Amino acid sequence: MTGIDDLPVRDELRGKSPYGAPQLDVPVRLNTNENPYPLPPALVERIAERVKEAARDLNRYPDRDAVELRTELAAYLSRTAGHEVSTANVWAANGSNEVLQQLLQTFGGPGRTAIGFEPSYSMHALISRGTGTGWISGPRSEDFTIDVAAACAVIAAEKPDVVFITSPNNPTGTAVGAETVLALHEAAQAAKPSMVVIDEAYGEFSHAPSLLPLIEGRPRLVLSRTMSKAFGAAGLRLGYLAADPAVVDAVQLVRLPYHLSSVTQATALAALEHTDTLLGYVEQLKTERDRLVSELRTIGYDVTASDANFIQFGRFEDAHAAWQAILDHGVLIRDNGVPGWLRVSVGTPAENDAFLEAVRRLHKEITA
Amino acid sequence: MTGIDDLPVRDELRGKSPYGAPQLDVPVRLNTNENPYPLPPALVERIAERVKEAARDLNRYPDRDAVELRTELAAYLSRTAGHEVSTANVWAANGSNEVLQQLLQTFGGPGRTAIGFEPSYSMHALISRGTGTGWISGPRSEDFTIDVAAACAVIAAEKPDVVFITSPNNPTGTAVGAETVLALHEAAQAAKPSMVVIDEAYGEFSHAPSLLPLIEGRPRLVLSRTMSKAFGAAGLRLGYLAADPAVVDAVQLVRLPYHLSSVTQATALAALEHTDTLLGYVEQLKTERDRLVSELRTIGYDVTASDANFIQFGRFEDAHAAWQAILDHGVLIRDNGVPGWLRVSVGTPAENDAFLEAVRRLHKEITA
Repeated sequence: MTGIDDLPVRDELRGKSPYGAPQLDVPVRLNTNENPYPLPPALVERIAERVKEAARDLNRYPDRDAVELRTELAAYLSRTAGHEVSTANVWAANGSNEVLQQLLQTFGGPGRTAIGFEPSYSMHALISRGTGTGWISGPRSEDFTIDVAAACAVIAAEKPDVVFITSPNNPTGTAVGAETVLALHEAAQAAKPSMVVIDEAYGEFSHAPSLLPLIEGRPRLVLSRTMSKAFGAAGLRLGYLAADPAVVDAVQLVRLPYHLSSVTQATALAALEHTDTLLGYVEQLKTERDRLVSELRTIGYDVTASDANFIQFGRFEDAHAAWQAILDHGVLIRDNGVPGWLRVSVGTPAENDAFLEAVRRLHKEITA
Repeated sequence: MTGIDDLPVRDELRGKSPYGAPQLDVPVRLNTNENPYPLPPALVERIAERVKEAARDLNRYPDRDAVELRTELAAYLSRTAGHEVSTANVWAANGSNEVLQQLLQTFGGPGRTAIGFEPSYSMHALISRGTGTGWISGPRSEDFTIDVAAACAVIAAEKPDVVFITSPNNPTGTAVGAETVLALHEAAQAAKPSMVVIDEAYGEFSHAPSLLPLIEGRPRLVLSRTMSKAFGAAGLRLGYLAADPAVVDAVQLVRLPYHLSSVTQATALAALEHTDTLLGYVEQLKTERDRLVSELRTIGYDVTASDANFIQFGRFEDAHAAWQAILDHGVLIRDNGVPGWLRVSVGTPAENDAFLEAVRRLHKEITA
């Protein structure tokens, strides 16, 4: 039988495994930061309606520039993220992963480098590899915040072409302050100048305001967002960016033509009609998140400050064994490979109770 | 105002324009090889039903491996393309463009090259550029068929990592015989060995059988297909490949996780339920195609043999002026930049009549 190694795959792919969390069939799944609330029935109806309308023209290519969708995304950002943007500032793709891939194809690629401050969203490194962009692993402080002086020093020394800042950071959960972004942006401009990409996938869950206003007057600063989390639409695969219109023009040089299907555009537009209801769920999740943080601390765990719909907690002598023990109690969470720490997504109150029960039992077992 | 050139875009992107046919508002649009037949109402209903079902779980990530969809695509190929394949042989993505991009990320990329025989589907060169793969423009004969001896000589000399064969070829329309594919495949294996990708986007419209059976025993031969044309679903963006299971494993090393949305999977599955109806439209289009070829020849035009849902015709001293004249008569076709030739998509009988009327007038004007 032919195996991957019998094929002329690129050297850097040899021996690698596909990215993805284990998908296990357990009662409570809190491992991929999904929103636990299904879309409201009225929105499900509206999606069916809008997709039906789109399906009547499905023999035609979709709007290549997704103008209606970008206009509505711009309106959403303008209303909720503290800064007025227009259609020309916004670009959309199949998940923020594809947005990031397009940015790296445009501003990274062979002979260029990107930097992230790890631990962070591991797809930044993987998409860099997939686009031939060299990856630089930048430092963090002990408490998982960005050490501004150390970060600026690495940027000055390495002169990366793309700087990733994840806020709130994944898997650690903490938002990044505007002053940190501005310091890194300044260092990046002095070094190259390079592009700075703020990945704000969990932005709606943050205690802190969006970093969107920082794009004003900074054409090399890009904000990336997704409908997977706050909009409860992980299955939709809709990511977007906001930036200077020149960035939107630039990524169109590498985007695959007609990359965003008519059904995706129709479904996203339906979801945007129900923004207020969906943001109501976000408020519930924030309340539950704060409850989880407080309960975990009461039990005796360390918790990294969370601005997201997930929480990093520890410390464990053997995090993977702890992950397995919690799984054995029927709750699947995530071992992101951060030594001593695990990550749990915020679920429904009942799911969170099940998780708390599992970690209480684990804590007793460990401290017994 | 900031422009693209003020941003640190990659050098090879400077001065380029985004790919895409002009989208003009004219009565008859025969420029992008779309299927002119809207989906039947029963299928539109079924799409709405299946998407509604999928939307109930939209807060969850889609099936990352699209197993149900790949199984149905495999069943479709097994039934219609002369060779039995299974789920493990099939991979799907957002349009065949994304399939090809994943193949180039896996088997091409920086320091590697791909070859195509031009004129051919121009995205092969563009996606190569987008993935950092060097592009080699291979030769064709005067009649636009592949000159096997010349092609094999270039493959032997250049040792490309990926060889593209488009059958039926776009924009010229002619299918490639199995013996040509086998000769090029043999040359490619002797030279490197390299991957051979058959782009059969228009396969269902061909007089010749599918080249699918050739993948048997040839793990480096890949067949690429799309639902955009025969399934009348250009708006859906669903492409797929069939190959040895090792190829399917390999592309998963570069695919973005959860690349294919739940709504895309649901819509494609609905369309596959209506295969027989849609293939009925294909038969109507083949009849119309053959009528158009015959009428164009009667008027006095040269026509390249067509196995597709489009036709290349000429010759014009100034093809772009002829394109404009036909547009002035209310019919938008495509100038693909092949000197002396233009391409027209096969439309409904009424659209084709409008096109024939326009080219009759043009022919009179030119020969007057």
